[in-house]
Amino acid sequence: MRAADNVSEQRLNQRLAALARLGATPAGGVNRPALSLADAQAQELMARWGQDIGLEPSRDAAGNFFLRLPGGPEGAAPVLSGSHLDSQPTGGRYDGVYGVVAALEAAQALLEAGVPRRRPLDVVAWMNEEGSRFAPGMMGSSVFAGARTLDEIGAVCDSQGLSVAEALRATALRLAHIPGRPLGGAVHAYVEAHIEQGPVLDRAGVPVGIVTGIQGKHTFRVEVDGEAAHAGTSCRAERRDALLAALAMVRALTEVMHDAEDIVKFTVGRFEVMPNAPSVVPARVVFSIDLRHPDTGTLRRLSAQVQPLCEAHAGPCTVQVTRLSAADSLVFPPEMQQRVKQAAEALGIPAIALPSAAGHDARYLHGIAPSAMVFVPSRDGITHNEAEYTDSADLAAGARVLTEVLQGLLA
Amino acid sequence: MRAADNVSEQRLNQRLAALARLGATPAGGVNRPALSLADAQAQELMARWGQDIGLEPSRDAAGNFFLRLPGGPEGAAPVLSGSHLDSQPTGGRYDGVYGVVAALEAAQALLEAGVPRRRPLDVVAWMNEEGSRFAPGMMGSSVFAGARTLDEIGAVCDSQGLSVAEALRATALRLAHIPGRPLGGAVHAYVEAHIEQGPVLDRAGVPVGIVTGIQGKHTFRVEVDGEAAHAGTSCRAERRDALLAALAMVRALTEVMHDAEDIVKFTVGRFEVMPNAPSVVPARVVFSIDLRHPDTGTLRRLSAQVQPLCEAHAGPCTVQVTRLSAADSLVFPPEMQQRVKQAAEALGIPAIALPSAAGHDARYLHGIAPSAMVFVPSRDGITHNEAEYTDSADLAAGARVLTEVLQGLLA
Repeated sequence: MRAADNVSEQRLNQRLAALARLGATPAGGVNRPALSLADAQAQELMARWGQDIGLEPSRDAAGNFFLRLPGGPEGAAPVLSGSHLDSQPTGGRYDGVYGVVAALEAAQALLEAGVPRRRPLDVVAWMNEEGSRFAPGMMGSSVFAGARTLDEIGAVCDSQGLSVAEALRATALRLAHIPGRPLGGAVHAYVEAHIEQGPVLDRAGVPVGIVTGIQGKHTFRVEVDGEAAHAGTSCRAERRDALLAALAMVRALTEVMHDAEDIVKFTVGRFEVMPNAPSVVPARVVFSIDLRHPDTGTLRRLSAQVQPLCEAHAGPCTVQVTRLSAADSLVFPPEMQQRVKQAAEALGIPAIALPSAAGHDARYLHGIAPSAMVFVPSRDGITHNEAEYTDSADLAAGARVLTEVLQGLLA
Repeated sequence: MRAADNVSEQRLNQRLAALARLGATPAGGVNRPALSLADAQAQELMARWGQDIGLEPSRDAAGNFFLRLPGGPEGAAPVLSGSHLDSQPTGGRYDGVYGVVAALEAAQALLEAGVPRRRPLDVVAWMNEEGSRFAPGMMGSSVFAGARTLDEIGAVCDSQGLSVAEALRATALRLAHIPGRPLGGAVHAYVEAHIEQGPVLDRAGVPVGIVTGIQGKHTFRVEVDGEAAHAGTSCRAERRDALLAALAMVRALTEVMHDAEDIVKFTVGRFEVMPNAPSVVPARVVFSIDLRHPDTGTLRRLSAQVQPLCEAHAGPCTVQVTRLSAADSLVFPPEMQQRVKQAAEALGIPAIALPSAAGHDARYLHGIAPSAMVFVPSRDGITHNEAEYTDSADLAAGARVLTEVLQGLLA
């Protein structure tokens, strides 16, 4: 009995389309910040779909959402599968949400097939993977795995000054009809399906990727303080222009991070100027650094240069560099990679092995349970962009492989 | 009979303190954007003070506010005196508002002295001098003087997408109890008191400045378009990072604008990144340029280099450069400068001549009537900053000179 045969491409796509309407942007993308109304509505919709087929919804104190397919004896550690429902401000329709919908599709296929289950399956949507509204990301999964505490993430504020703790309370009130569940707990295994967010599978023309590991990522917040002054009266020699100092830092960093092989990923994605008025010399700039490299040694070496470089280019301003996160590169257990490979082979679906250049919640689950990831292609590698696209047949192929892997883990 | 003797330093300061409460910031400054609630409240407070002493408030279609001290035969062209009530986002307590309160103080002193008047005096607060919420600034005075049309300024939007036309309508509804008056009309003369916003008077230890003219200013909006991409997966070679392109432009401009004499004023004050998320390669940057030089020839030469330089440094991005305003340097009529000089001499108040490095509404009034400006010191030249400060005795000295000049113009 192969539950994967019950995966419905049509149902999968209908659910993705329905979720894409929550926070839909005019350009066809999605803006669904973590703990926003649209994010809560997405959990509500998932709860409804789950309840319709007999799954039990629940939420934990970190804002993570679960749908349980019961199985096995009382207290058996569950298999978890899912991803996240939050998006970037101009995000696409697949990043994160595909992994949640694919896990629901797998649960439904397993249920319909009536395969024996020795443990429960929890479909999961982790809180704030993107780290866009509240930085850094992967908050829900890191707290679930015990790598961060609720207090730590609770103090983080968005650009409007609202804290994660306040947003969690507001969302919990809104979703008070969904039962609570304790934070954390034993996990038998974790499998996450996701779009690749890179061009490898698309260029190779292969529908499924067996993810070998996740490239390391260090993130920083850099705060540059100068002094506000009148654009028409203050002399250049007397200015303490925070924008010019910040630009000098970014330029110096860009030069140091430059590698001929083009493997280093260095990004300044957030850059905010205060007071941000045309005739006022900028008093303050806050910018982000996102630095990644598949080799942990290289990543650490580059990361160590951020603070001294910023300080060396502060000019008449002052600078404070805070490292927000420092995740080294990781490799998924070979036996878990093997499960994905064998599932694809059993279903006759072409698959290749590749590393993940992007970070995922699987990073934190990897710390507490055997974990694996299944990729599907991203057209032209475009992601974090409203034009993000994956072919419907590839989405279904990934969900079939996921279902086959989960069936094995539950057996 | 010298009306200037009736100027009350205490009353002047009390009014400035009362206005500083409208839009007060925690750090002791003022955030009173044009056409905001606080800005309307400031006009309301001015109306109340004027009505208490028999002045007649009115507003025109451009959101300018007037208090008339009647005088002379029906239809005589008024003398105008004032400045603006709006502020920068982290502005001080004196920029603009001093000129309005000093003009009210002068009107009250003239009234109390009972000096003969052959024409009316209009105390005026021009709409949106700062150009911070809606760029470019000096909107009210430029429309009053016929240099721009209501339609032109009405279409300008703030960063929230609200237009000047909409904000004007909302403010007009809020202040519907203040009578309307026709836009524009003949002006006999215009005199504007203002803080210097530079260090010259403060360093010289002189309380009053006779303003010789206003340095020219050209402003631009630069829009850089790249492409959003994932910070962890997109290769450097394939990125179209709008932030890096904008940074290269600002750097090239800074180099070209560098003069050994430190006379050029070049400022990038507004700089906005979209989508502004830590793990997304910036898709778009919009930044402002404020360029000033007292020599019109030099200003025009530098101004002409902005667009080609931005285009040359766009890299894989595209750029659109829009010149928002191009005001050349101007000199106030010598006979108006002479009036200020003689008034200071008559009152025994030390005064020196100096140019204005900052732009003022007097720029546009200069186009339709003989105009002059009276400066008072800015401590350490600090302005567009919450720490902006002028000594109370200097504020009063400036108001006395203004009153003496206005008495002469009304006679």
